[in-house]
Amino acid sequence: MKKVGIIGATGYTGIELMRLLYFHPRARITRVTSTSQQGEDISRVHPQFKKIYNLTLEELDIEKLAEETDIIFSALPHGLALEKVPELIKMGKKVIDLSSDFRLKNPEDYPIWYGFEHPGPDYLEKSVYGLPEVYRDKLQDAYLVANPGCYPTSIILGLMPLIQENLIDCTSIICDSKSGVSGAGRGAKLPFHFPECTENFKAYRVGNHQHTPEIEQELRNISKDPALTLLFTPHLVPMIRGILSTIYAAVNKGVVKEDVEEAYQKAYQNETFIRLMDETELPETKYVYGTNFCDIGFRLEERTGRIIVVTAIDNLVKGAAGQAVQNMNILLGWPEETGLLQPVVYP
Amino acid sequence: MKKVGIIGATGYTGIELMRLLYFHPRARITRVTSTSQQGEDISRVHPQFKKIYNLTLEELDIEKLAEETDIIFSALPHGLALEKVPELIKMGKKVIDLSSDFRLKNPEDYPIWYGFEHPGPDYLEKSVYGLPEVYRDKLQDAYLVANPGCYPTSIILGLMPLIQENLIDCTSIICDSKSGVSGAGRGAKLPFHFPECTENFKAYRVGNHQHTPEIEQELRNISKDPALTLLFTPHLVPMIRGILSTIYAAVNKGVVKEDVEEAYQKAYQNETFIRLMDETELPETKYVYGTNFCDIGFRLEERTGRIIVVTAIDNLVKGAAGQAVQNMNILLGWPEETGLLQPVVYP
Amino acid sequence: MKKVGIIGATGYTGIELMRLLYFHPRARITRVTSTSQQGEDISRVHPQFKKIYNLTLEELDIEKLAEETDIIFSALPHGLALEKVPELIKMGKKVIDLSSDFRLKNPEDYPIWYGFEHPGPDYLEKSVYGLPEVYRDKLQDAYLVANPGCYPTSIILGLMPLIQENLIDCTSIICDSKSGVSGAGRGAKLPFHFPECTENFKAYRVGNHQHTPEIEQELRNISKDPALTLLFTPHLVPMIRGILSTIYAAVNKGVVKEDVEEAYQKAYQNETFIRLMDETELPETKYVYGTNFCDIGFRLEERTGRIIVVTAIDNLVKGAAGQAVQNMNILLGWPEETGLLQPVVYP
Amino acid sequence: MKKVGIIGATGYTGIELMRLLYFHPRARITRVTSTSQQGEDISRVHPQFKKIYNLTLEELDIEKLAEETDIIFSALPHGLALEKVPELIKMGKKVIDLSSDFRLKNPEDYPIWYGFEHPGPDYLEKSVYGLPEVYRDKLQDAYLVANPGCYPTSIILGLMPLIQENLIDCTSIICDSKSGVSGAGRGAKLPFHFPECTENFKAYRVGNHQHTPEIEQELRNISKDPALTLLFTPHLVPMIRGILSTIYAAVNKGVVKEDVEEAYQKAYQNETFIRLMDETELPETKYVYGTNFCDIGFRLEERTGRIIVVTAIDNLVKGAAGQAVQNMNILLGWPEETGLLQPVVYP
Repeated sequence: MKKVGIIGATGYTGIELMRLLYFHPRARITRVTSTSQQGEDISRVHPQFKKIYNLTLEELDIEKLAEETDIIFSALPHGLALEKVPELIKMGKKVIDLSSDFRLKNPEDYPIWYGFEHPGPDYLEKSVYGLPEVYRDKLQDAYLVANPGCYPTSIILGLMPLIQENLIDCTSIICDSKSGVSGAGRGAKLPFHFPECTENFKAYRVGNHQHTPEIEQELRNISKDPALTLLFTPHLVPMIRGILSTIYAAVNKGVVKEDVEEAYQKAYQNETFIRLMDETELPETKYVYGTNFCDIGFRLEERTGRIIVVTAIDNLVKGAAGQAVQNMNILLGWPEETGLLQPVVYP
Repeated sequence: MKKVGIIGATGYTGIELMRLLYFHPRARITRVTSTSQQGEDISRVHPQFKKIYNLTLEELDIEKLAEETDIIFSALPHGLALEKVPELIKMGKKVIDLSSDFRLKNPEDYPIWYGFEHPGPDYLEKSVYGLPEVYRDKLQDAYLVANPGCYPTSIILGLMPLIQENLIDCTSIICDSKSGVSGAGRGAKLPFHFPECTENFKAYRVGNHQHTPEIEQELRNISKDPALTLLFTPHLVPMIRGILSTIYAAVNKGVVKEDVEEAYQKAYQNETFIRLMDETELPETKYVYGTNFCDIGFRLEERTGRIIVVTAIDNLVKGAAGQAVQNMNILLGWPEETGLLQPVVYP
Repeated sequence: MKKVGIIGATGYTGIELMRLLYFHPRARITRVTSTSQQGEDISRVHPQFKKIYNLTLEELDIEKLAEETDIIFSALPHGLALEKVPELIKMGKKVIDLSSDFRLKNPEDYPIWYGFEHPGPDYLEKSVYGLPEVYRDKLQDAYLVANPGCYPTSIILGLMPLIQENLIDCTSIICDSKSGVSGAGRGAKLPFHFPECTENFKAYRVGNHQHTPEIEQELRNISKDPALTLLFTPHLVPMIRGILSTIYAAVNKGVVKEDVEEAYQKAYQNETFIRLMDETELPETKYVYGTNFCDIGFRLEERTGRIIVVTAIDNLVKGAAGQAVQNMNILLGWPEETGLLQPVVYP
Repeated sequence: MKKVGIIGATGYTGIELMRLLYFHPRARITRVTSTSQQGEDISRVHPQFKKIYNLTLEELDIEKLAEETDIIFSALPHGLALEKVPELIKMGKKVIDLSSDFRLKNPEDYPIWYGFEHPGPDYLEKSVYGLPEVYRDKLQDAYLVANPGCYPTSIILGLMPLIQENLIDCTSIICDSKSGVSGAGRGAKLPFHFPECTENFKAYRVGNHQHTPEIEQELRNISKDPALTLLFTPHLVPMIRGILSTIYAAVNKGVVKEDVEEAYQKAYQNETFIRLMDETELPETKYVYGTNFCDIGFRLEERTGRIIVVTAIDNLVKGAAGQAVQNMNILLGWPEETGLLQPVVYP
């Protein structure tokens, strides 16, 4: 039984890690830290954990944490993992970081998209982007996993097979994504105040969302085509969980439905957490609620020569904590689905 | 055309006043004040008002406001109207105050239920409790209207006829009320954060909600029975607007359904804004959404000797801004329904 | 005061007409028909209308209706207006039809997209497509108005100025639209059953929604370019009302932000019901809830050479009943906004 | 590994059984039946089960089912289990029936509350009411378990300790319960149509809900007081899952808070699935979402001499499928919590 530590355990990503690891047969949470609520029992801060977890939130003490755990998840907000995570790496610990602090390979992207100079560009090289369907091999030897963003996961998984098989025009990609409100975190702010947020639908950060360079970086890695660009528009859906991405691209000449089906089959037939919809079905966020699945469907539209790919994930699971556990399984040499296969709480 | 001023125009009560007064044929908003956003156009703070209102939020200047308006609504939070409103009264203005600062007649209730000593007990005597169905006569000559709370409105209107006709045991009253989230105001706080609030239902402030003395005060005024007590439990419903109160009381011996029907008919047959459900119907909050109606239904249960009264209002209309406009109409000698009759936005 | 009749008054479009016409100073509903609930009081079927409307649902008797009303709205489901509406036209009545039965000019589109042969192709020529911002002049003399679909309204209004001023590539248009559930009507079906529908987001009818030919027809009319094609994907949002359309197109070479602003200004500066967002704002469905406004914002993205236009309407108002009343005002020579300017019920 | 059959597997109770049993280490679903969709793969009817269950819905063949399974859950609608379940019992199978067909001990209650004569009153005697916290001993030898209703579970568990310790007046009990919409099942009907149901709150079946005799039967069993009566009012909350019951009773003279705390401790200190809130907390439905917990809190109100008990369960888990699995564990001699302890999917 491996001992797991979670830094920043009270936010939505932290408690989702706690939920998922409860089912894990080979790992056990032994340390949880919180800046704002140290000293409190987790079941006082989160009463849903009564009779489930008996843990006290501790101050973050890097050395103690390194000594007393085997693997560490960092669920700190963006910008706060920058200094803490490298210290753990230096002590030889494996860390899965759920922030964006180690995702972008080009340090120059940080000032542009996140507003700060990255203090440790070395770590950007060392980190492995934690999308198992793409980087499984590298992840096996990784020490620092940069766990992907929720939108990027939903988009990269939808496009990878099409780019790999050269089926689409890489300058034509448009991603129209829709996310539930938990993606904005647990901080109470006016746009997420219930009366403002329910019975409302809107686009936000149109053309300048910070996930844009992350998605482009990974799609260019796959395509080897620096001309690849992405138009990405996120939207806010009045629901708690779920991301549905509707992805548009022009298909290359002569591409037929069977080519697309083959590409997806080839890429994903052995992937536990990818579910391909057949031609009568389309993904819905409810089908993946609370699970680590990414559902993918598509339609090829001959009238306009375009493909429409629809993907659905749970932003807190495959888009965050579930993928992190999947990465932990890889890092520790366990079967990837260990503790992660669960039916949806439906309806 | 009378000129109207609104103090504290950007909260939910303030903007609801603005919405309702837009339809008023004899009154026009000319001044709106805001502490936090003075200098801003109202349609910048509340884009829904584009092409509807062309008003700038001003700093609160009591003298200027008194000079340039005929009647004033104060939509300041509880505790902040205490000093501002008396100044306006002294200048001879009529004020309708939507806070609880002038509702309780006994100054000793303020430290107990609101946590402050009331600085102007005189004004508690002068104010008229703005429930037209009870105090219509007094309101005609009022200068200071203490506009009722949302829960009290839904409960007092449900019980008044039964108490007046001596049909129930006044020591047996239990009010189980359920409110939409807008009742908590526009301040973003964790319990009203969308992901926490949606798909959740809870009771809160059980046994110690600050509306309890207000309801008891008014029901005792009606019953002349100081032994009358009220058990009041509020709940939070994952919806924006609406209060449904389920009210229980033991009926006095021999009371039959027809007695109850007569009591309601007698009290409300000429009331524009009370709608009595027939015996096949029950109120639903959706039927009063956005309107000044209070819908009332009941069942007499012979098995247990109790009556169950169900009332529904929109907490922001009959429970706040709509009732305030109704009071304005009375104060200014206009027909009570002027500008207030509107169909529900349904569904 | 003109007398108005509504055929099919109990569905969501019918009751929305009733809501809006309540505020109309020059028109009064005198006849309402219903197939399923004839003989019932409207306030029995729709209790929200108690004390608002005192009308009885009648069997549809074309002759009687023609005699006793001045203008008629048909809110029958698609396919059912085909025979009834022409009879009224023959009797010289003006009819505003809210179904899709007279929207498509090419009769051959009906079997393809709606599954039936159109029985009266003559009427397709005679009908005027009821989008005032495009066809105001023709509408003034119209007898038969084909009131636009909800999605088409949200898309055509967003694109018209860009096409008119030749700013975009007409073969590159992608419309990703999201609608509240009331767009599906009042019929209870599993996909709209609350537990299935809430906390869920999905695309539907990808690539084959019946509004596609309607939108293409109108955009081609504007562009005069038969090569114009449209990729249209509708989605279902767990909210009652509202459509947000996110529209993508490649901009023509050299087009800058100011060109786009000018195009919108030129087209819409005198339009009462179009509200242009400035560059710090974006439309949200809540800002138009219950109103006849269409809010429009855009971002020009130089990185990818594309424009993203975002539009928001209330599907039941500007997308149906409100636009129908706007058309009635034009048909009867009244100011277009008569009875239609209303603030949003917010939040 | 025991083999489990589910009759009526596609409704909300059936799929919740499938979800819960997926986690069970000692039981495996081998047969699922459906009247309406026999022959279909379960993952075709419920796509959320892709990669989770590989089962085909079968016609109900009692003999085959009895042969090929060790224990059977019947999730048929009320009235349909009456004939099927006895056949299975006769073949010596243990059956847990989730309908109300075997819950009431007095056959005369069926025509009054359910509208049919009960065809097998013998089975009413043989069945054990499946509330483990009350009938654990009897359940160990049971063949036919009548799994309790959702409202009754939430109410009986809240009141049992108070009645057992004689702390309340049994003629004064009022239960004001609020349920999510999944309690109404999967059948699409107008009151549960999303646009009608969301942003709405209502009471229904006031004074005549069919769970009333079930609750009274069980509370009288505990109190031995035939005078015990119950006033029960159910309400519909616009959320998917969860029941919150607010229960009122007059406390007997001299009862203090410590008496109540002791009563709950005594009754529930060893109960895995009961969580007692402390005096700073109150239950919320979200804390039990998807779990088999029943959370209980209370306030003693000296002003009115009454206790207010608040309980929360998930209507589909402790209120249906979870309790059924708990009963299975008892019937088969396994630890009661086997496969049932799970953290909430939160938020």
